[in-house]
Amino acid sequence: MNDEKFMREALREAVAAGADKEVPIGGVVVCGGRIIARAHNLTERLTDVTAHAEIQLIGMAAEAIGGKYLNDCTLYVTVEPCPMCAAALAWAQLGRLVYGAPDPKRGYTLFSPSLLHPRTEVTSGVLASDCSALMTEFFKNQR
Amino acid sequence: MNDEKFMREALREAVAAGADKEVPIGGVVVCGGRIIARAHNLTERLTDVTAHAEIQLIGMAAEAIGGKYLNDCTLYVTVEPCPMCAAALAWAQLGRLVYGAPDPKRGYTLFSPSLLHPRTEVTSGVLASDCSALMTEFFKNQR
Repeated sequence: MNDEKFMREALREAVAAGADKEVPIGGVVVCGGRIIARAHNLTERLTDVTAHAEIQLIGMAAEAIGGKYLNDCTLYVTVEPCPMCAAALAWAQLGRLVYGAPDPKRGYTLFSPSLLHPRTEVTSGVLASDCSALMTEFFKNQR
Repeated sequence: MNDEKFMREALREAVAAGADKEVPIGGVVVCGGRIIARAHNLTERLTDVTAHAEIQLIGMAAEAIGGKYLNDCTLYVTVEPCPMCAAALAWAQLGRLVYGAPDPKRGYTLFSPSLLHPRTEVTSGVLASDCSALMTEFFKNQR
């Protein structure tokens, strides 16, 4: 139930991204039961292909906890991370990853599940249909 | 010869990183024969595991050319990119990647060469021994 609660917060971020004409992906980082970072995709606004939600969350969470490593944190993100983000989460030694919808075109699991840190626990499929519907809707409206 | 010239500039960045107690990896981005971005690893200073030279170079180069994609750019970096950076360079649609030393522990080729964009041309081994010596020296001094 907590996973769904936090995924709803990630979804709020994703909706905010979509409203800004960004690909609607959002996330939060939770540590000790508390949200310490929230962000969404900003690749358009920042004109930066690396400005995915996860990359920003890593920086914000590190700042919040005053250290580089996220071993005790859970990162919630609405869509399966891409290989860049998975490998970034590996450098961050993320404790637990929870994602909603799979990304059958660009998801890290297409490349290698081992892009993540070997100790990162993974849960997928939380509110997957809501997460996925946001993406489908966004790309339908773009055409 | 131009590759060596630009790799020497990347090496200058790497030396500057080492002087700041950062893992000594540096790089430059070249477009139209001109350096449009130069950066080195800043993971310690920024307390951010994603602050690799390449990630910063992507942002700086995009700003310099006023667009997100680096199709007409060559990125020089002293050490083989990690999977995070390779996948970031794929999002950036980098035209050409030139790196010096291989990274047999964390290099992207260990995971999958296809982490890069399919159209990115790759040259490796430019001034490899200089690039590698900087790393060896750095980690020797840390112990």
